[in-house]
Amino acid sequence: MTSVHPPNLSETQFLRALRELASVVGEANVQRAKDRLDDYADPFTPQPMAQSFAASAAVLPRSTDEIREVLKIARAYRLPLWPVSTGRNFAYGGAAPRLRGSVVLDLKRMNRIVEVDETLAYALVEPGVTYFDLHDYLRRHGMKLWIDPAAAGWGSVLGNALERGFGYTAYGDHAAAQCGMEVMLANGELVRTGMGAIEIGRTWQLYKAGFGPSYDTMFMQSNFGIVTKLGLWLMPQPPAYLIAHVKLPREDDLAAAVETLRPLRLNEIVQNHAVIEGAIRHAAGVSSRADWYDGAGPLPESVVDAIVARLGIGRWNVHFALYGERDIVDVRFAAAQKAFARLPGAAIEAHRYEAGDVPTGGSEGNMAGIPAMSAFRMLDWRGGTGAHVDFSPICPFTGPDAMRQYSVAKARLAEYGFDYYGGFTAGQRHLHHIVATIFDRTDPHQVDAAADLQRVLMSDTRAEGYGVYRTHLATMDFAASQYDFNDGALLKMSETIKDALDPDGILAPGKSGIWPRAWRAKRGVL
Amino acid sequence: MTSVHPPNLSETQFLRALRELASVVGEANVQRAKDRLDDYADPFTPQPMAQSFAASAAVLPRSTDEIREVLKIARAYRLPLWPVSTGRNFAYGGAAPRLRGSVVLDLKRMNRIVEVDETLAYALVEPGVTYFDLHDYLRRHGMKLWIDPAAAGWGSVLGNALERGFGYTAYGDHAAAQCGMEVMLANGELVRTGMGAIEIGRTWQLYKAGFGPSYDTMFMQSNFGIVTKLGLWLMPQPPAYLIAHVKLPREDDLAAAVETLRPLRLNEIVQNHAVIEGAIRHAAGVSSRADWYDGAGPLPESVVDAIVARLGIGRWNVHFALYGERDIVDVRFAAAQKAFARLPGAAIEAHRYEAGDVPTGGSEGNMAGIPAMSAFRMLDWRGGTGAHVDFSPICPFTGPDAMRQYSVAKARLAEYGFDYYGGFTAGQRHLHHIVATIFDRTDPHQVDAAADLQRVLMSDTRAEGYGVYRTHLATMDFAASQYDFNDGALLKMSETIKDALDPDGILAPGKSGIWPRAWRAKRGVL
Repeated sequence: MTSVHPPNLSETQFLRALRELASVVGEANVQRAKDRLDDYADPFTPQPMAQSFAASAAVLPRSTDEIREVLKIARAYRLPLWPVSTGRNFAYGGAAPRLRGSVVLDLKRMNRIVEVDETLAYALVEPGVTYFDLHDYLRRHGMKLWIDPAAAGWGSVLGNALERGFGYTAYGDHAAAQCGMEVMLANGELVRTGMGAIEIGRTWQLYKAGFGPSYDTMFMQSNFGIVTKLGLWLMPQPPAYLIAHVKLPREDDLAAAVETLRPLRLNEIVQNHAVIEGAIRHAAGVSSRADWYDGAGPLPESVVDAIVARLGIGRWNVHFALYGERDIVDVRFAAAQKAFARLPGAAIEAHRYEAGDVPTGGSEGNMAGIPAMSAFRMLDWRGGTGAHVDFSPICPFTGPDAMRQYSVAKARLAEYGFDYYGGFTAGQRHLHHIVATIFDRTDPHQVDAAADLQRVLMSDTRAEGYGVYRTHLATMDFAASQYDFNDGALLKMSETIKDALDPDGILAPGKSGIWPRAWRAKRGVL
Repeated sequence: MTSVHPPNLSETQFLRALRELASVVGEANVQRAKDRLDDYADPFTPQPMAQSFAASAAVLPRSTDEIREVLKIARAYRLPLWPVSTGRNFAYGGAAPRLRGSVVLDLKRMNRIVEVDETLAYALVEPGVTYFDLHDYLRRHGMKLWIDPAAAGWGSVLGNALERGFGYTAYGDHAAAQCGMEVMLANGELVRTGMGAIEIGRTWQLYKAGFGPSYDTMFMQSNFGIVTKLGLWLMPQPPAYLIAHVKLPREDDLAAAVETLRPLRLNEIVQNHAVIEGAIRHAAGVSSRADWYDGAGPLPESVVDAIVARLGIGRWNVHFALYGERDIVDVRFAAAQKAFARLPGAAIEAHRYEAGDVPTGGSEGNMAGIPAMSAFRMLDWRGGTGAHVDFSPICPFTGPDAMRQYSVAKARLAEYGFDYYGGFTAGQRHLHHIVATIFDRTDPHQVDAAADLQRVLMSDTRAEGYGVYRTHLATMDFAASQYDFNDGALLKMSETIKDALDPDGILAPGKSGIWPRAWRAKRGVL
């Protein structure tokens, strides 16, 4: 295959730019050979679409000083850069850039845990720090703090918060737990947000806002700057905790589950990002599709019923956690148990743990701040070379809304030959509805169907007044176009700010549908 | 006195602009007569400094359509506008503009409660809605929701959240409880943030972020746009609650109080924005300074001791609240009581209430979501025509930090002849330290001393690594200059965004120290 280069540069110009970059970060930290670039390909999208998101090279700086020099070269060549922390958000494109030919700015070598304060319960980390790293650090130093891991523990703590990922403890909203950033702008200026602008300051990770306008959330899912440090609040290790599972027998119990959970969340009885998980997602943690069915198309209802019966699980399965002093956990559990006991056929079980216990149930670790890689088991569900792409609409925290999103998604998935592999994660007033389309990336038919399906699902739910919180590279423009109040005034404002902060258009063109002036003609082009 | 007009316009040009504005909002809603402009003067800063912040006129639109037309005229004349919701933040300048001669854009006529959703516990309000208004609305409709009032109930719900004010319940962080905005930009474009950009959407007040960069906090303490609607999460009325008061006998008990409260807050035993209040602030709620002392200079320690003894209060007084089912309140209180009982000399008392009870203790209403105006009693402390200006540094949630801030402030206040009238309001990892300088605005000596003192206090604490979260018009530039990491990179970024979003520089020049290009020469000029 021919080598990829940025669309605005000749091969000669590009090679010159790479030589200059190598003089900053070292030869070994500029990668172009085909086999090295596989790390920067979209891991779950096969050819030919992955070609749309092919990187031309990767550059791996190790400091903000090096990034500043990289930016200087990028501005001179108008070289599009695609910053990633570790690039592990596989369902949304991994480390691959939106604009073909961009150079991935891989920050994984910047992996210092700059500070952890046990008393005030926070960490300050660089982009390359993973959940495993931070968890190990806390254990090694005997600190009584929990992390809140994303589904896959190898992900970047900083990167996941920036993408508004979430976990399963009381600190499950990673963007909300973020406090204070260091950001390098396209012009090489290093900005510290919030109280971080007070030099020798002591409150950078303690109070989010600072003085005047506050910008941290503007750098999330964004291409306005390169976040080089991020503060994150950590959960004090609770003296005791309890993890509970509720099994609900019928498909339409989803509505009742949501209605039951909402007041428990709003009144802070249930403290964690509780999950309401469909039967198939639950089953995929312990079995493969072929164990149950070998036909084409989605699993028939009778097979789903058989899975539920055989595995002794619910058609819907609620997982929640309670934390605190033992007696507080007890009264909380009594309240939650009473609420769920009202649902016909509900079965509830609970496991109690003391401070520092490691949960015995395999799926419970994430509710106790323990990172794992078990989320990847789902890839085996469909067989072949498993991959998934996620459809992630925000759902109001009501039973009717959840049922509507579920019904619409399930019907469309079936039409395209896929099972409903999904669940709802509970915020306070909303649910993250996450629907994974699992496919075999060696089967071209499945691949095409999975890709088409995402747009159709987004259109379906948009017509009902719902929008996605995050999406794959291939649908970023499409998602942004759905946020169209007043003729797309929000996106226009984003691009005004983009052009002001990055006039050369070098940072992540197309990220979240935001294109700098220099690259605006590429909108919608895959 | 001569009439004030914008510095860049002749009287003739200005009169023409006012006529055009009147054609949009009606004659009655353009105010220039001296007696009407008193409403827009800094209420607590006497002449001559108030002259620095004199408005030239006020314009009162009643809709976003009218605001759009006002902006069109303002752009044509480069007329500086100073938007206020109701302009009631008296300690920080009221409705007065930073730039002398600006036209106040008073939004109080836009006072619709657009929506309240009892199930999902939120409100959507326009700028003119006060805490009293929203509280009345909820009671009138029998909705089981609480508001979280600021100290003075006449303030704007929207304005207070934008200025990052705070209250006293579990929803005390008003900026954190905000969800979704409608903002008109200087160019007249109406933007809805977050999920609000999904038209006919259902999640605007449910999920903050939306898709891509999120901007709500960028419009706080900001001059980047005019916020015309704001969503706010409301607290479900708890089935029971308890309000507790802890009296601590010694001045240096502050450190122990803070150390005791921190784990209770971090572990969510104490749920509200608890307050640690100095004896004088407590005393000012029930007496005047003249009742205790008629000498000059700050109250001698012996007098403070006498006040504490006579009123039966603590040298420091902790006020906190617990909410929830009765049994949960009980176990929480047991934990809090045990913690405070360890402090030598601590006396704790608690009042229990059922859902819907109105607290009997006069000062307890604000912890039960009931707005009041009793905060203004403090103005009588010093006698004469009472006024105050607030010094508001952010303090790490540790005993040593609180003691350091308290000691530095108290010594400086004494040097300038003032009492330490202050307290600490508890976030989770920080404290808002609020120090009111109370003075008689008819006494020129006190006025000058109070003004000088603010800068000195800010310099003192800045040297220790602390910054203020909010400040009076007169010290906005000074505060912004303290956030000086990397040669003021944050302020530079703010002004880059300002120039992009408001190239004519018409919106609130100087707000939070941010000056548009057209007015940058006015920085630091009072």
